[in-house]
Parts: sequence; C-alpha cells; structure tokens
Amino acid sequence: MSLNATPRGQRLHIALFGRRNAGKSSLINAITNQEVAIVSGIPGTTTDPVAKAMELLPLGPVMIIDTAGLDDTGELGALRVQKTLEVLNKTDLALLVVDPGRGIGEYERDVVNRAREQKVPVLGVINKIDLYPEAVNRPWQQELDVPFVAVSALTRRGINELKMAVVKAAPRDWALPTIVGDLIEPGDLVMLVIPIDKAAPRGRLILPQQQVIRDVLENDAVAVMVKERELKHALASMAVKPKLVVTDASAYLKAVADTPPDVLFTSFSILFARYKGDLPTLVAGARAVKDLKPGDKILIAEACTHHPIQDDIGRVKIPRWLRQAVGGELVFDVASGGSTLPENLRDYKLIVHCGACMLNRREMLYRIMQAQEAGVPVVNYGVLMAHIHGVLKRALSPFPQALAILEEEQVEFEDELALLSRYREHR
Amino acid sequence: MSLNATPRGQRLHIALFGRRNAGKSSLINAITNQEVAIVSGIPGTTTDPVAKAMELLPLGPVMIIDTAGLDDTGELGALRVQKTLEVLNKTDLALLVVDPGRGIGEYERDVVNRAREQKVPVLGVINKIDLYPEAVNRPWQQELDVPFVAVSALTRRGINELKMAVVKAAPRDWALPTIVGDLIEPGDLVMLVIPIDKAAPRGRLILPQQQVIRDVLENDAVAVMVKERELKHALASMAVKPKLVVTDASAYLKAVADTPPDVLFTSFSILFARYKGDLPTLVAGARAVKDLKPGDKILIAEACTHHPIQDDIGRVKIPRWLRQAVGGELVFDVASGGSTLPENLRDYKLIVHCGACMLNRREMLYRIMQAQEAGVPVVNYGVLMAHIHGVLKRALSPFPQALAILEEEQVEFEDELALLSRYREHR
Repeated sequence: MSLNATPRGQRLHIALFGRRNAGKSSLINAITNQEVAIVSGIPGTTTDPVAKAMELLPLGPVMIIDTAGLDDTGELGALRVQKTLEVLNKTDLALLVVDPGRGIGEYERDVVNRAREQKVPVLGVINKIDLYPEAVNRPWQQELDVPFVAVSALTRRGINELKMAVVKAAPRDWALPTIVGDLIEPGDLVMLVIPIDKAAPRGRLILPQQQVIRDVLENDAVAVMVKERELKHALASMAVKPKLVVTDASAYLKAVADTPPDVLFTSFSILFARYKGDLPTLVAGARAVKDLKPGDKILIAEACTHHPIQDDIGRVKIPRWLRQAVGGELVFDVASGGSTLPENLRDYKLIVHCGACMLNRREMLYRIMQAQEAGVPVVNYGVLMAHIHGVLKRALSPFPQALAILEEEQVEFEDELALLSRYREHR
Repeated sequence: MSLNATPRGQRLHIALFGRRNAGKSSLINAITNQEVAIVSGIPGTTTDPVAKAMELLPLGPVMIIDTAGLDDTGELGALRVQKTLEVLNKTDLALLVVDPGRGIGEYERDVVNRAREQKVPVLGVINKIDLYPEAVNRPWQQELDVPFVAVSALTRRGINELKMAVVKAAPRDWALPTIVGDLIEPGDLVMLVIPIDKAAPRGRLILPQQQVIRDVLENDAVAVMVKERELKHALASMAVKPKLVVTDASAYLKAVADTPPDVLFTSFSILFARYKGDLPTLVAGARAVKDLKPGDKILIAEACTHHPIQDDIGRVKIPRWLRQAVGGELVFDVASGGSTLPENLRDYKLIVHCGACMLNRREMLYRIMQAQEAGVPVVNYGVLMAHIHGVLKRALSPFPQALAILEEEQVEFEDELALLSRYREHR
C-alpha cells in the first residue's frame, strides 16, 4: 500500500503558519531531519502552500503543509483568508511559528482566531531561541492563549519537546494507515491463530482480532482464522503458503512450532505495539532487560485500574520472570491510571507498560516519548511476553528495523530459549 | 455436533412441577407431539426426575425435566426440598401443572416460593379444561401471583398459547446451541464473504460476522474471510473445497456466481433467520408472496425505530418489489418498536419483519408465533431479499426442511430468476 494513498485522518496533517522568515522551512527540516524545504534567510523563498507526505519518527506518517505565501506579506485580504481557511479545512494541528524578534501581532491573532473557528488546535512555537535566549521566559501562552514550545531549529534544542507537544495535540482517533497492509500484497493469505478460551467474550471476537481481519480485507487479501490446534491442518488445506501468520500471544509456542520457517510470523500484541506505539523503542526496552541488576527499580505502568488479566501479567508473571532473569530481588512500583506517566521516571531502570488496550495511539506514543525523554528504556507487555516466551526474534520477522535493534545486541534465539526455560521453571 | 452435547443455557431447560396425576406426562406429550413419557391415570407412574432432550417446534432444542416423585405424595420433608432445589438449580422455566379438580394448595405455594427464591420464572398451567371447562374463568393468577395458561393435554386446546407463554418466559440470552455447527465437521473450511463498504463500522466487524467466525472456530473448523471480489481467487488458493460459503446479502449475485454448485451456500441473514427465529415458517412466508392480490394489506414490522438502512429495505425496496410482483397497488402499514406485534394481525395478508438485529431469539420467535396464531404468513427481510434476488433456493441448500417448504409449492429457480428480473427492471 502506497503511503501517499493513505487517507486523511490516518496521516496526521500538520500546517505550519508563521510570518515570512519566522523559520517555518528550517523548522520542518529540524523535526523531519530531511532537507525537504528550501531553507533561506530571504523572505518569501517558499511561495505556495505545499503539502508534503513524510515520516516523522516516532510519530509515523504525517503530512506537513507549509503555508508560505499566506503570511503577512503574501496574499492580501479576502484571498488570503480564503486560502487560510482551505488549509485549516484539511489540518489536524496548526503550528504557529513565532519569531521572538518580532513578537505577536495581528497576523498571529488572526491565525489563532480562524483556527479556533475551524476547531483546529494551535500549538505556538517560539523559534530562534539560539538568537533570543531570553525569549524562553516571556509569557507567550498568556499573550495568545495557546500552549507554546520554545525551540531552535538551528541547534535542535526543544525539538523533542515540540514533537511530544504535537503528539499531545493530535486528534483522539489518530491512527496509522494500516495494521498489516504494508506486510501483504492483494490476494495474499493471512493466517490468524485465535484460541477460544474462557477469557474470550461469548460469541464475539475481541477488538484487535476484528481490526486485523478488517485490515486484511481492506487490503484485498484473505484472512484465514483458526484455533491453534487446527493450524497445522489449516496450513495443509491451503494450495498456497500464507504470507503471514499472526497468533494470539497465548498460543505462541504451538503457533511457532507449526508455522513454516519461510512464512512471516508475528502476534497480535506485536502488531499493536507497532500500531499504537513505536516498535523499535519497545524492542530496545526488551533488550535492556539484560542490563538490569539486583536492587534496580522497575515501573509497571498500567493505563487503567480495572483489568484483572493484565494485572496478573504485569503484577505476577512479569515481575517473577524479571527477578529470575536478573537472579535477585528487584523493586517494583505500579502506576495505574493517569493520563501520562508519573514525573519521577528517572528513578527507574526499566518501564514495563501494559498492552494499552484502553489507550489510543496519541496517548501511548506520548508515554513512550516521555520515557525516551527521561532516558529510561520502555517495553510493553506484548513485546516482553514474546521475549519471555523465546519468540521475540521470530515474531519480529516482518519488521526488519525492530529486528535489527534486537540483533545488534546479539540476543540470539538460543539466548531467548534459555531465558524461556528459566521462566518456565519458576512460573 | 450432537444435540445432546448442547451446553445448558442454549438448550432451554423446562421443569414440570405438579401434583401426582395432574397430567404432567400427558402435557409433555402434547407440547412435544412425542410419546416420551409413560402416560397413565394411575398416580405415581413416573417416579424420578428425568431430564429428556427434545426438539420442540418451533422453539428448537429443549430439555424437559419431569419432577414426578417430588409431588405431594412422593418424597417427604427435607429430601423433597433438597431434590426440588436441585431441579430448580438447572431450570430456566418452571411449569406448574394444576389439576382444576383439586385447585391450589400447600404444594403449589411451596413450588412457587422455592422457585422465586432461586429466581426461576414460574408459569402456571391449568390442565384438563376438557373435563373442567368452567376452570378457565377462575382467577388463578390472583390466587398464586404467577401467569396462567389453560390447556387440555387431551384435546390440545391452549397448547399453542402455552408454547407462546413458554417463549415469553424464556431467559433473555436463550439461544440455539450453534449457528453453523450442525452444518460442518471439524477441519472443514467455511468461506465468509464480507464486502467492505461505507456502512461497515470502521476497523470493526458487525456482530453477526463475529458470531459466525466464533461458531466456526468453536466447532474446530477454519473460517476464511474474503471480500466478494477476491472470492474466486481465494477458492483457487484452497487445496480443498470449502464445506460452506456464507455471504453478506449485499454480495449475493457475485457470491452465487463464484461458488461451485456442489458447495453449500447461504447468507448471514438466512443463518440468523434460523438462529433467531424459525426458518421454515419464514420461508413459507416468502412463498406466500405469490398469493398476494392488488389491494391486500401488508404489515412491515420493525423491531426498532432507528435503523435508516433497514428502513430503506423495509419502506422502499421491499414495497416497490412486492407491488411489482403483484402487478398492482398494495396497502402497507408500518409497525415500529413495541415488545410484540400489534393486535390486529388478522387484517394483513403478509407480515414482513425486519432482520431483528436488536431482538433476541425469545422476542423474535414470539412474534413469529403471534403471526402463526393469527394465521398470517410471516417473512423477514433476509429471507425475502434472498427471494427477491432469486437466490433463496440456493441459499437454502444447507437446510433441507426449509428447502422442502419452498419446493413443495413449485417455486423453481427459474421462477425466482423471473421475479428477480422484474425486480431489477423497477428498482
């Protein structure tokens, strides 16, 4: 599936407003690490609103709309208003870039008012704090009644905070364009291994299963659903090999054993770790388990307070296994609920986050970025449980980038199996 | 799937209480049309609570528990109480059979009180009204504070009302044991054709699709889901033929065309017409279309008042097609909402009921029985739309009993095609 074909609403649309020479183009370069706009100190280098699709790590696919030409010296009067409204119409979030040397004037107030009319959230960006370091202290937010972040596009200071503010201001329903669509071609078979146990709701499928089936169908592929016991039989009933096998985490070992080695393999939890969060970062978090030492503090972070099954994973199974992996005692704190992670993240050597079934992408990604900002490795239940079961490497087979992070550190399949046998002995 | 393996909660458990010789056994025979119990006028012929699995038309599978031996002259004291509680523990509905010659006494009050403690609904049955015709007028309900039906097991008078009262008193979650389980064997492939259109909820599957997938998996079979455009390709990707193809009604023609003739074929709507209602009766309703004459009154019965898509089917498409099939005007009344069908059913020549997505089996079956009681043919949207599309015969291939009702009247596939072409010309 072409990224450019992503419908709006999945690719976050960010419009940059700001007076000529406020530094919109160089800010785009700073947040994307790409030389996409022609950066120049001469006012008016960019002359028309241009929407560019790009990947913004760790946010994923975004659309950046540069509104050069709609600023204080560009189109005038009715035409400027009309073009500004056109841009706002397809915008999820407006970044208003302010040059502290010029401050806030009629142009900035006009953008905020029009965005408010269109119900588009505005995030103020004070740029050039390398040139105007005292600008950081000015009460911008009070002047314009929108949140502000201070950055230097030149030195990249504040760029991470800006990305976190962007995530925080993203729409609630912001999602990646697809769950499995980039892994498959039209007509491919995708095998979904779904154990039926007492935890499953009677006569229904849980939402992640529904979402993956829908995504397979929307990508013109074929979804084959089977219990783990019938997987081998179902594979033999197919005239062609499936492209991908996705298993529920509770059937990891049976599903790995029955899936041919040349078929891509993963789990629903790994798919959703990617869909809702940032898989490479979470894999790096799993890798960090080997650096833990007895006495280290670990934060178990739960999004909500009412999930007994996840409680059991987070409060009993994972702590038991981590103690075992470390060969000594560890200190576990549990943070339940709350809209973000607690402030004292730097106290911890590892954050273990729940599966985030009650969080949207915006919320989970923000939490991951909080951990990154604090320099603390973060993993989630799904990725860690795959690690514990010794199948993380296999379950990352569709994701070379995340796999590279795991392999970089020479955590080999054999090591994972050794970890697993230790886990099994003690559960 | 063996009917005897049906778990409780799906097979309705009905316990018959009543004093010795009140006619419990002959009442069982009357409602089941089977000689299952030994009927005798000598008190105490049946001597122990016996649970018997049986089919009760149109209710489907039930379990009848005859409590002979727990009556006024059987076990005494504590033992009787204990055994009665044991029976009530596995009972969904208690029928209390009263002999009008003996009336209500301590035994009847005890059964009602114990059932109330166990939260089991009680339905009173005045038997032998052939012998005691005046018993019909006695205010039984006031005496015992439970609803009463007057019947004669001998002449079968009131037996239909009794069945309707049983349906009305059934638990809300009463369901058939399976949706497709009786059509397939373990390991079979079941192909589900699911168009993805704007009506489908984003990222989800509608409940009937989820229910069929679950049912396929619970019966150890393999569910293959595919859009209608990929059906042919998916069939070619299988090493074995599927046992059954189930399509969404919106893809009837494409799915029929691409399904091999020796593969069972049906639709989600037909499956749910059977699961929630009584398929043979609804097929007889479709057959009755050919008996309609211009000027006839037709009732469009909708369970709820807020379903625009079904509105379009029930208020536009079906009336237009029925007028066309009849070759003249028809009078359409619409009944929306309400817990049962309106009282004046006998005014109508046909009742066309909605898909009942918001009704449970108990409610839909009661409405079908109301129509039967009034002697008016009843069909639902799903069965009628299959008829309109000319695929009803094909879509009944898994259901010989319903198919026989259609074929008895020589509605041939060719006739259906003729009906369809008329429908197409005018939609």
